[in-house]
Amino acid sequence: MLPFDIVEYQERLEKTKRRMEAKGVEVLLLTDPANINYLSGYDAWSFYVHQALVVIIDEPQPIWIGRHQDASGARSKTWIYDENIIDYPDYYVQSETYHPMAFMGEILKQIGHGNRTVGVEMDHYYFSAKAYQRLIQSLPDATFKDASLLVNEIRLIKSDQEIEYMKRAAIIAEKAMSEGVKTIRPDVRECDTAANIYYHIASGTPEYGGDYPAIVPLLPSGENTSTPHLTWSERTFQEGDSVIIELAGCYKRYHVPLARTVSVGQPTDMLQQIAPFVIEGMNEVFDAVKPGMTCGEVEEVWRNKMKKRGVEKEARLGYSVGLNYPPDWGEHTASLRAGDSTILQPNMTFHFIPALWYANYGIEISETFRVTEEGCESFTTYPRELIINDPFQIDADGKIS
Amino acid sequence: MLPFDIVEYQERLEKTKRRMEAKGVEVLLLTDPANINYLSGYDAWSFYVHQALVVIIDEPQPIWIGRHQDASGARSKTWIYDENIIDYPDYYVQSETYHPMAFMGEILKQIGHGNRTVGVEMDHYYFSAKAYQRLIQSLPDATFKDASLLVNEIRLIKSDQEIEYMKRAAIIAEKAMSEGVKTIRPDVRECDTAANIYYHIASGTPEYGGDYPAIVPLLPSGENTSTPHLTWSERTFQEGDSVIIELAGCYKRYHVPLARTVSVGQPTDMLQQIAPFVIEGMNEVFDAVKPGMTCGEVEEVWRNKMKKRGVEKEARLGYSVGLNYPPDWGEHTASLRAGDSTILQPNMTFHFIPALWYANYGIEISETFRVTEEGCESFTTYPRELIINDPFQIDADGKIS
Repeated sequence: MLPFDIVEYQERLEKTKRRMEAKGVEVLLLTDPANINYLSGYDAWSFYVHQALVVIIDEPQPIWIGRHQDASGARSKTWIYDENIIDYPDYYVQSETYHPMAFMGEILKQIGHGNRTVGVEMDHYYFSAKAYQRLIQSLPDATFKDASLLVNEIRLIKSDQEIEYMKRAAIIAEKAMSEGVKTIRPDVRECDTAANIYYHIASGTPEYGGDYPAIVPLLPSGENTSTPHLTWSERTFQEGDSVIIELAGCYKRYHVPLARTVSVGQPTDMLQQIAPFVIEGMNEVFDAVKPGMTCGEVEEVWRNKMKKRGVEKEARLGYSVGLNYPPDWGEHTASLRAGDSTILQPNMTFHFIPALWYANYGIEISETFRVTEEGCESFTTYPRELIINDPFQIDADGKIS
Repeated sequence: MLPFDIVEYQERLEKTKRRMEAKGVEVLLLTDPANINYLSGYDAWSFYVHQALVVIIDEPQPIWIGRHQDASGARSKTWIYDENIIDYPDYYVQSETYHPMAFMGEILKQIGHGNRTVGVEMDHYYFSAKAYQRLIQSLPDATFKDASLLVNEIRLIKSDQEIEYMKRAAIIAEKAMSEGVKTIRPDVRECDTAANIYYHIASGTPEYGGDYPAIVPLLPSGENTSTPHLTWSERTFQEGDSVIIELAGCYKRYHVPLARTVSVGQPTDMLQQIAPFVIEGMNEVFDAVKPGMTCGEVEEVWRNKMKKRGVEKEARLGYSVGLNYPPDWGEHTASLRAGDSTILQPNMTFHFIPALWYANYGIEISETFRVTEEGCESFTTYPRELIINDPFQIDADGKIS
């Protein structure tokens, strides 16, 4: 049932323990659901209540602690022995009196780890300010360390099996993009295009069923393309609009994001002018990336190329991507931006998204690449271009030819 | 463009300020995207980076603070004046050096609120332990108070316009459920049923386009029905399986959850025995709920009825629901459980989910109701029953009759 061989989980655990040792962390309390999944295989939409995977440096197995009703999932969907699955009663859920982190602290004390150095993920969504307060209160003799990204940094380099899952996610991403693009024509609502995209994301292919991506398909159109994170609405596409589709295919929680910009009819002069620059810049970066470069140097390749075109970009160009859960598919480690000194190594994977946003329009053409032994390769072969859906070429059954 | 009249936003803001005054909070820094939306209209998938809406007790307008690239969305999608939209540069994003909360603290100091009493949402997903640390560090002269649920409690009672949006969400929920159920038969993959459900959730109806729900459709089948929060997989349905569908229709971020259990072929004896008890219990609760009761008393109605049947349930029976964002559609205020003293009032809305999970099966039949002047009413009319899809009655084109 597990998506990886048990040996792979054990190797991940060993790497985690080596990093814990290096950082002086004896007990690692993980709350990032991607890290929990990475080490245990646990996969459920239970991260909206407090839960944790606890790695103890001198214990062979991690401990899962979560809500009573979720424990059966932890027993059946992980390689952890049943006795290491510990659950809290339901009255701890969203209560002003009881807090799951106080329960977890008690458990750590009971099993003799109340006075150790505890690493926590200080800046993660699923480790709130109060979670930290309650954990500290219940473990007065423990020492706390910020262990943010300790596991995320191991996740930077993917195994061959992880790459295989991302290749499947890429096939799903391409299919969803292609099916979504087909539906874009005047008078179609954003929500109907989104529905088609999500259908294919979830259904996947006959060989590989899709999983839900950590971010829903983003689909701004018209002037809304000037803002990156607007989700779909009931707005209908109009001739002359551009539409940005940013989506990810997802397979067993591994993501391959992909973005394209679609013009409804002939593109505006501005879009026609800017699109080739973006594509040239992308081509140049894909040609340049190789192991040994830093993430900052990748950004420099883009920046130098764009400077000649008079184009500047404030935001980062991309980020490490792979296994994840809502609300983000990015791994929060390496970013393709000035000053990031992460050295590229084979099987690192990045979403490269040199998007540009202006006052009343924007353009996004993005791909996800893998660093190879000699260079890099895109996970997708979807044409790297501004897509033009010309509404004057609609055939009898409403399809754009 | 805004989903509510500006007067409604101003009333919400006034209520918030009255509660701030009562709790001695002068500056309220909201990080819950539902609360941000509730007061400002802001709606985007930007909550994966730090952002806040700041309500200052003696200022007429809230201040939105977020990432530079999201500011154009805040300008165009809220009723806040442009000068109250403040953005931080991209190098603050997921950086080990810079933190957006330090930026926000600096802003509060610059505009003269560095020494006031600041309320924060201590147990919210989007207010991490580190966010709190950095905010405190940057505001050494401020006093901090836990203002968790301050706005959520206002959200408990819906306006007529909010109820109208939930009615539209209910129509979408029923359609998605009905279309999903139709696809369930032997050898169909969970992911294909999920794809159909999500298609209808997003597309909605010709009148009302759907929005993305805060939780994806949950769709365990077979033995996985013993665990509530498993998402879909590539598993194919088998004759004799049961399948649980828990979904929500969503309209302009307002949710109406709905769950049903579907038997693939004739149900097991256990399911046949338990289903009528669950439905009887639901009927009894829907008959009993009226304004003036407490949430705890609602739970008691259920518990007394079930005791006669020898059925016990550990988890809460439901919770307040409405406007929300991932990872949860529940509002984290009132729960239908023993000891909850919230008094029911007209236009409170609850997801009533008396689900039961056993060692190797489970049953979920749930509905969302509104408290009315005299009693309560379900948002949906979808038959309250165990659904039996008998694979022996498949017609020529594969549809179950």
